[in-house]
Amino acid sequence: MATIFSETLYTGYGQHVDVKGDMLVDKRSEYQHIQIFNTRALGRVMALDGVVQISDRDESAYSEMLTHLPMIEHGGVARVMIVGGGDGAIAEECLKHPNVEVDMCEIDGEVVAACRQHFAHVNNGAFDNPRFHLHIRDAFEFLKEDAAAGRYDLIIADRPDPIGPAEVLFATEFYELLKRALSDRGIAVFQNGCPFFQPEELSETLTQLRGVFPHAGTYLTVTPTYIGGFMALTWASRGTALGSLPAADVARRVEAAGLATDYYNAAIHTAAFALPEWIRRLAS
Amino acid sequence: MATIFSETLYTGYGQHVDVKGDMLVDKRSEYQHIQIFNTRALGRVMALDGVVQISDRDESAYSEMLTHLPMIEHGGVARVMIVGGGDGAIAEECLKHPNVEVDMCEIDGEVVAACRQHFAHVNNGAFDNPRFHLHIRDAFEFLKEDAAAGRYDLIIADRPDPIGPAEVLFATEFYELLKRALSDRGIAVFQNGCPFFQPEELSETLTQLRGVFPHAGTYLTVTPTYIGGFMALTWASRGTALGSLPAADVARRVEAAGLATDYYNAAIHTAAFALPEWIRRLAS
Repeated sequence: MATIFSETLYTGYGQHVDVKGDMLVDKRSEYQHIQIFNTRALGRVMALDGVVQISDRDESAYSEMLTHLPMIEHGGVARVMIVGGGDGAIAEECLKHPNVEVDMCEIDGEVVAACRQHFAHVNNGAFDNPRFHLHIRDAFEFLKEDAAAGRYDLIIADRPDPIGPAEVLFATEFYELLKRALSDRGIAVFQNGCPFFQPEELSETLTQLRGVFPHAGTYLTVTPTYIGGFMALTWASRGTALGSLPAADVARRVEAAGLATDYYNAAIHTAAFALPEWIRRLAS
Repeated sequence: MATIFSETLYTGYGQHVDVKGDMLVDKRSEYQHIQIFNTRALGRVMALDGVVQISDRDESAYSEMLTHLPMIEHGGVARVMIVGGGDGAIAEECLKHPNVEVDMCEIDGEVVAACRQHFAHVNNGAFDNPRFHLHIRDAFEFLKEDAAAGRYDLIIADRPDPIGPAEVLFATEFYELLKRALSDRGIAVFQNGCPFFQPEELSETLTQLRGVFPHAGTYLTVTPTYIGGFMALTWASRGTALGSLPAADVARRVEAAGLATDYYNAAIHTAAFALPEWIRRLAS
């Protein structure tokens, strides 16, 4: 009989998927329960504390949209910080841009070790790239150091849902630390939940960000294994507003970048800022 | 203990939702098993043969995108035919456009009766509107009649998945009957599955449509209760290609129409034609 993985994110609603073969990883780290397994429906999956974090079938919708969209909007990113991101999928996308240096601050070294082994086809050598610098430590402490001030052109918060220890990554203090760590035209982007099931998460974050940054807003992606339809990605900027770059300029920059992608392209970049009425109301 | 509804659409993958209170409808018609029930997560739901067909929390993403988008593109729709659509949600959207006459051809009168009662807040009087004409019969027979030839400016195929009796609604013969029933600049639009789980359904339909019509393509919507992320809506046209109307013209027409919507707006109209790379490859 097949083992069935049932996600435990929402009360009274969930997805279940048949596991194919044995669990590849099923252990408790200092911070969380790590499970990695194969499935026919979703490909290879990692769940943390019972919640799907990545599937190799659709991680592109998440990691490409958190990376290439702000990179192309900014136009001159040299230094990136990733908060979390232990699976290495976002690091790999960042490193597709030549000359970009990446600091990744992930608290759980066991997630990194498991994903170096079992998601090597996704992170694709990122952990061994000389432009990539791994810091196994608390992101708050890292951001508070003098060396972080004004250092980053782009900070990508690959944060989980605001449950337990990740709650601090939704606090105003976190946003103030990020603002301090950004360069003059710097941009921060955030995983912000599925508004169909987590509407307050989007509206509350935007209220907080608008209190700290001169510009903030949201754009959308669709990652099927994060059930609930659209996923909101929020952004905050010390410089200009995201989404104001004309479509023709986006197309020129995307073509010049010559990225190999599975989700992101110039049309999707511009379309991602279009919000359905019900999300527009939540986000305004 | 709560009753749990587990969807049976895909092998080895599914969604489950706690039912709130008693089943409102749980019966077998001549054609299918009809279930209507309340849930905390998805609102009121109707399932046919174990597959979710409509939820009042997100039906707007489906019914508005199958109706207003082609209406606005065409610019002069006077007569609409709906194939299926027994819940009345699409009929209600069509009737928001003044002077439009609607023929709806639904095979299962028991679905209509159940939805008149339990989805009255969604179909909102559509069944009693003098511009609405209900035909409880087989759509193939209806389309073959002399009276149907060249009659419709828009045909909306609110078809279920191509399983069992609905398989004929994915046959080339069906597309040829629709072409015959369309007026000179007529447009047909189709529910075409979630490409994440049903990729062949999209590519096969587009091959068929391109064999029958001068123009065909796809646009996207996101209906969370149809799990799998994006839902593909395909279109075929006897006149011009959909998606070629400039964004500024779309915005002008949408403003002039003054529609009350929960999902559709001018920005979403234009954005719906942007395809992620992996869907663009499937659809090309």
